[in-house]
Amino acid sequence: MCFARQKVDALIRSRKSVLCVGLDSDLSKMPELFRAMDRPVLEFNRAVIRATSPYAVAYKINTAFYEADGLGGLRDMEDTLTLLPPETLSIADAKRADIGNTSRKYAQAFFEHWNFDAVTVAPYMGEDSLEPFFSYEDKLVFVLCLTSNQGSLDFEELLLEDGRPLYMAVLDKVRTWSRNCNAGVVVGATKTERLGEIRRSAPELCFLIPGVGAQGGSLEGALQSGLDTAGAGALVNVSRGIIYPEGSFASVAEYEAAVALKVHALHEEMRSVL
Amino acid sequence: MCFARQKVDALIRSRKSVLCVGLDSDLSKMPELFRAMDRPVLEFNRAVIRATSPYAVAYKINTAFYEADGLGGLRDMEDTLTLLPPETLSIADAKRADIGNTSRKYAQAFFEHWNFDAVTVAPYMGEDSLEPFFSYEDKLVFVLCLTSNQGSLDFEELLLEDGRPLYMAVLDKVRTWSRNCNAGVVVGATKTERLGEIRRSAPELCFLIPGVGAQGGSLEGALQSGLDTAGAGALVNVSRGIIYPEGSFASVAEYEAAVALKVHALHEEMRSVL
Repeated sequence: MCFARQKVDALIRSRKSVLCVGLDSDLSKMPELFRAMDRPVLEFNRAVIRATSPYAVAYKINTAFYEADGLGGLRDMEDTLTLLPPETLSIADAKRADIGNTSRKYAQAFFEHWNFDAVTVAPYMGEDSLEPFFSYEDKLVFVLCLTSNQGSLDFEELLLEDGRPLYMAVLDKVRTWSRNCNAGVVVGATKTERLGEIRRSAPELCFLIPGVGAQGGSLEGALQSGLDTAGAGALVNVSRGIIYPEGSFASVAEYEAAVALKVHALHEEMRSVL
Repeated sequence: MCFARQKVDALIRSRKSVLCVGLDSDLSKMPELFRAMDRPVLEFNRAVIRATSPYAVAYKINTAFYEADGLGGLRDMEDTLTLLPPETLSIADAKRADIGNTSRKYAQAFFEHWNFDAVTVAPYMGEDSLEPFFSYEDKLVFVLCLTSNQGSLDFEELLLEDGRPLYMAVLDKVRTWSRNCNAGVVVGATKTERLGEIRRSAPELCFLIPGVGAQGGSLEGALQSGLDTAGAGALVNVSRGIIYPEGSFASVAEYEAAVALKVHALHEEMRSVL
């Protein structure tokens, strides 16, 4: 099996890229020219996808940005899914999890109804809250481990009685829950040293690494610390650093050119390592 | 302020009820007669609300059950909101949370777009992931603390270096994050002793207590351990135990009568304590 994981690794090798483009598409931040369109978010996403598809391995749809606009926003999410290049991985950044019978419904939503290849989930409620996601053997499940934000100090980094920080307890459990290499973890790029420590502890897991760019993490650090020993097994997400280039744009083509420039620079940095 | 909390306490006192009805509405579990209708979930919810509204203080919409059907399901959620009696509390059982700029979008979705009175959130990512929810002073924010499922042993009950279990660290933080009494915690009814301990540690917080019925918790234990010293400040959620009465039903009226019977029995038990 290992379908989703093999797809990721094959793409990383063939494109010499670990780039995951985050579609955190926000009406108030996108260039004005899109706002005059009939469906601004969809057209914005179409432009982002067109400009990034030669370099992207995955696209991450942050569900919050779509839910904020209710049914209209979720229709944009649904229609955006049809625009993604079929060879790339689609990730629902949803951070869901609940008791078993409820998580089964979330898994159904993201893996069946919307047919994403991967989803992010939150570990707090433990194994039975994540099992319904892991039961889809051809999908990838990224469990929050050590996140890139300040609040990670509040609980994730608390030390347990046995000396491990909580995030290491999460990591250890996730390793036992994986089925046919369908487990992954979310580890922020803002803490490179810890990212390396987590990678050494879990050489077999797939990593989703956010936090490069707007949140302050470096791409170089993420690559050096986050890749597996075979030089694959990790996706580095960049959202705001790609989709909101500075400047004003007179046309969609101009905007796409600015995005392509950003992506090309990131890709050059990746190529030199991969 | 304390708008949402005062609303809850006033309702508890006037109705002598702490009942939160969970709308975990599942096509495969509802009586067959609804399945032949044009919008089964909406009509099912309409019947549940009609039969329970004399006794319910709150309705909890479990977002997973609606997302599982995509846009159609979310349209059912949206239309169900219009059926809720305005004097009751509407709770989005969504268990969201993400980095700050993303949580702001989730808060916008549930508190502005759908205008819920309350939401459930997951604590793993810490303060800045929950702050956007707490910033709505007239809404209630229920943070997962100690849940009713088996998986709560995996992380929630782990002992920290300082001797506290993780859920007590969450509780202590939530108490400092509350603004104008808008904080609450989710504590399962399946662990009555711990529920009492948590209540003694946080006399001022609003409690959302799931786990009565299908999950094995007792109503009596939830009431004795979960209420505040003034005999209010807690909501006890029952979902499957109310909305799926045994038997087959020839008409909506028959189904409603069976639901009303269930709810009436729960209410009698509540009345004797409140």
